Amino acid sequence: MTNYFSSDFTLGILGGGQLGKMLLTETRKFDIATKVLDPSAEAPCRIGSNTFVQGSLTDFDTVYQFGKDVQVLTIEIENVNVDALEKLQAEGVQVYPTPQTIRQIQNKAVQKQFYAANGIPTAPFRVFESLTDLRATAEAGTLKLPFVWKSARFGYDGNGVKIVRQLTDLNGLPDGQCIAETLVPFAKELAVIVARSSQGEVCTYPVVEMEFHPEANQVEYVICPARIDDAVAQKARAIAVQVAEAFGVVGLLAVELFQTADNEILVNEVAPRPHNSGHYSIEAAYTNQFEQHLRAILGLPLGSTQSKVAGVMVNLVGAEGEQGEVVYENIAQILAMEGVTPHIYGKKETRPFRKMGHVTIVNPEVAQARAIAEQVKRTIRVIALKK
Amino acid sequence: MTNYFSSDFTLGILGGGQLGKMLLTETRKFDIATKVLDPSAEAPCRIGSNTFVQGSLTDFDTVYQFGKDVQVLTIEIENVNVDALEKLQAEGVQVYPTPQTIRQIQNKAVQKQFYAANGIPTAPFRVFESLTDLRATAEAGTLKLPFVWKSARFGYDGNGVKIVRQLTDLNGLPDGQCIAETLVPFAKELAVIVARSSQGEVCTYPVVEMEFHPEANQVEYVICPARIDDAVAQKARAIAVQVAEAFGVVGLLAVELFQTADNEILVNEVAPRPHNSGHYSIEAAYTNQFEQHLRAILGLPLGSTQSKVAGVMVNLVGAEGEQGEVVYENIAQILAMEGVTPHIYGKKETRPFRKMGHVTIVNPEVAQARAIAEQVKRTIRVIALKK
Repeated sequence: MTNYFSSDFTLGILGGGQLGKMLLTETRKFDIATKVLDPSAEAPCRIGSNTFVQGSLTDFDTVYQFGKDVQVLTIEIENVNVDALEKLQAEGVQVYPTPQTIRQIQNKAVQKQFYAANGIPTAPFRVFESLTDLRATAEAGTLKLPFVWKSARFGYDGNGVKIVRQLTDLNGLPDGQCIAETLVPFAKELAVIVARSSQGEVCTYPVVEMEFHPEANQVEYVICPARIDDAVAQKARAIAVQVAEAFGVVGLLAVELFQTADNEILVNEVAPRPHNSGHYSIEAAYTNQFEQHLRAILGLPLGSTQSKVAGVMVNLVGAEGEQGEVVYENIAQILAMEGVTPHIYGKKETRPFRKMGHVTIVNPEVAQARAIAEQVKRTIRVIALKK
Repeated sequence: MTNYFSSDFTLGILGGGQLGKMLLTETRKFDIATKVLDPSAEAPCRIGSNTFVQGSLTDFDTVYQFGKDVQVLTIEIENVNVDALEKLQAEGVQVYPTPQTIRQIQNKAVQKQFYAANGIPTAPFRVFESLTDLRATAEAGTLKLPFVWKSARFGYDGNGVKIVRQLTDLNGLPDGQCIAETLVPFAKELAVIVARSSQGEVCTYPVVEMEFHPEANQVEYVICPARIDDAVAQKARAIAVQVAEAFGVVGLLAVELFQTADNEILVNEVAPRPHNSGHYSIEAAYTNQFEQHLRAILGLPLGSTQSKVAGVMVNLVGAEGEQGEVVYENIAQILAMEGVTPHIYGKKETRPFRKMGHVTIVNPEVAQARAIAEQVKRTIRVIALKK
C-alpha cells in the first residue's frame, strides 16, 4: 500500500471552498500532503493546504498542469474541466470520482437518462435542447403544468431549478439544454451518503431528512436520523447503494431523494463528493464524511458510518439586505447552548443568502437537538459590519 | 465582545508542535486568524496557521517582537520566555495562561510549595538547591529511601523524574535545583482537565485514568471515564477545581493526580494548556479540549465537557531501535477496527520513544474501547523507512 502518512505522497484537490477546507481538517489529522486549485486568492483552502495554486478550474491547461505531479486527484465541486481530468487519468493519475462519473453527473439531462437506463426510480422527465424547444412543447399543450424546469448544466443551491406553474414562469430563465420534470408531491426530502472505496468496499450513512421552511421553500434543517420508518430508511439506503454501484463511484456519493406520500423513494439528484447533507457527521458520526471520502479515494478501509449521537445542521447564510465585511451576530449566545458547534467558512464578505458557515447541534435525543437548532436559528445572524 | 470570527483579530501561539497543531484545527473551524512561533522550520503548525514565525521561544526579544501585534497570546508549551510575556502583558496584550501562572508552574519546586501554601493535597517533598545538596542530605541519612527525584526545571515525558531506591541511582542525574518527593504507593494515576474562562466560568472534564504498562512504567492508555467510584471522581474533580482557582488560571489546567490505596487524592503536577490526557476529547467529548481552551482564553461561553461515548487514547511513539524517515506500519489495519482514529503529528523523522501521534478509540462501552485499544497497540508500529 502507498505510504500516505507524513510521506512524499500528495493529494490534489480541485476547488478550495468550504468542502475543501473541511477535507483539509482530515488531511492535516493524517498528515497527508495536499495541493489545492481554486480561482480565488482568498479561498478558504489557502490556509491548511501544503500548496495552494490560484487558477481556473474549468481551463484545460490550468487543470492539467496542476494535476500532473499529484498521485491522486479529487474534487470538491463538479464544475471542473473534465477533458483535463481524462488526460491526467490516461497518464496514470488516479482521479476520484472518475472523469466519466463527473461527466455523467455534471449534466442533469445525462444524469436523469442514466437513472432511466439503470432502472433507478426517479420522477418522470423530458429533455429539451433549449428553453425555446421546451416552451414550444408546453405551448402546444403536450407538457402538463405544473412541472419543474431544471437547467442541464451547473445549477447549485437552488439556482437552475424553478417550479413552472404557468408558462410566464419561463420568462427570464436562461436558454440552453434543460429538463422538465413532473412535480412530485413529496412527503419528505431525504438524503443518503454512500461511500465506495477504490477497493470496492461500500457503506451508507444513516438517512437524513431535509426540513424546509414552510414558506421560503429553503432547507432549514438537516436532521440525522431522519424521522421516518425503518422500512423507508432501508429502502432509501438500498436505492442509494444501487445508484453508487451503477455509477461505479469511488469516494462519496450524496444521493438526494424524495419520499412520496405512499412511501415510494425517488432519486432527485446526486453529488460525487462530500455534501451539505453530511456536515452533521463531523460532530455526530464515528467517521465523518470528509475522513470517509479520504479513506475511500485512498483505498483505505472505510470507517463506521454510525452516529454517536443525533445531529441537526443549520446553514448559516448571509441575511437579506446585508452586504459587506461579515459579522456573526450573537455567536457567543449560541456557543452557550448545549451541543452547539459553529463552522465558519472564512469568507470575509457576506451577501444575501451566501453560504457563510453552518452550525451543528448534537444531542442524545434528536427532538432535543431539533429544538436547540430552532433556538440557534432564531439567535445568530450573518450581517455586515456597520462602519 | 471582540469579533474573533473572520475578522482582523489575531491569536498568537507560542509553540508549533502537536498541541498547537490540534489547536489550529479549532481556529480554522472558527476562522480565527493565528500567528505561531516555533524554533523549527518543520514544525507541525507551519501549515494551518495564518502566519508562521521561526524563532526561539526562550529568547526575550524574539518572543517580545512576536507578541507585540497580537491581541491574545497563548502557549502550547511552558518553556517560554516569561519576562517577555510580562512585558507584553504590561503593554496590553492578553496573555493566557498569565505569565505569573506559567512562572509558578514552570518550576516544580515553586509548584509544590504553592500546593503546600494553598492547602492542596500533594505528596510530601523537600526542595534542594542542587543535586549535591540532596546527595549530602541523603548520605547524612535524613532523607528516607526510596524517594522520587524531580528536576525543578523542564522535565517532560518522564525526563527529569527518577525513582531513587539507592544512592547510586543519583549518579548521572543533572545538577541544579530539584525536589525529593515521598514515593506514594498509588492505586491509580488520574487526571482532570479544568477549563476556566477569562470571565471566571469554570468547568471540569470527566476524570481520566492513565493505565501503565506493568513492566515498562510508561503510560499505555488514557481511559475516559476512569474506572473508579463516583465519590473518588467527585473528589478528584473538586481538588482539580481548587488548584485551578488557586492559580487563577485562564484557559485549561490539566491536573495529574494520584489515587492512593485508601482513596486519598494527591496532586502530582499540572500543565496550564491542552494536555495528552485530554486528547480523547476530540472524538469523545461534546467540546474537545482544544476548542474549550479557545473558548476560555477568548472569554466565550464554555462548552459541555460531557462525553458522547467512552474514549481510550494510545500514544504512538517511535519504536525502539528505529530512527529515520517515519513509516506507520499497519496503519490501514487499525483503520479497519471499530471507532479508531489515528492522529499523525507530522514529524518526518522517527526516533525511539518520540511522540509521533496518537490513536483514539471510541465506543459506547469503555471496556470495548479498551479491548480495541489493546488490538491497536499490538498492530501499529512507528518504524523507520527501510531504503
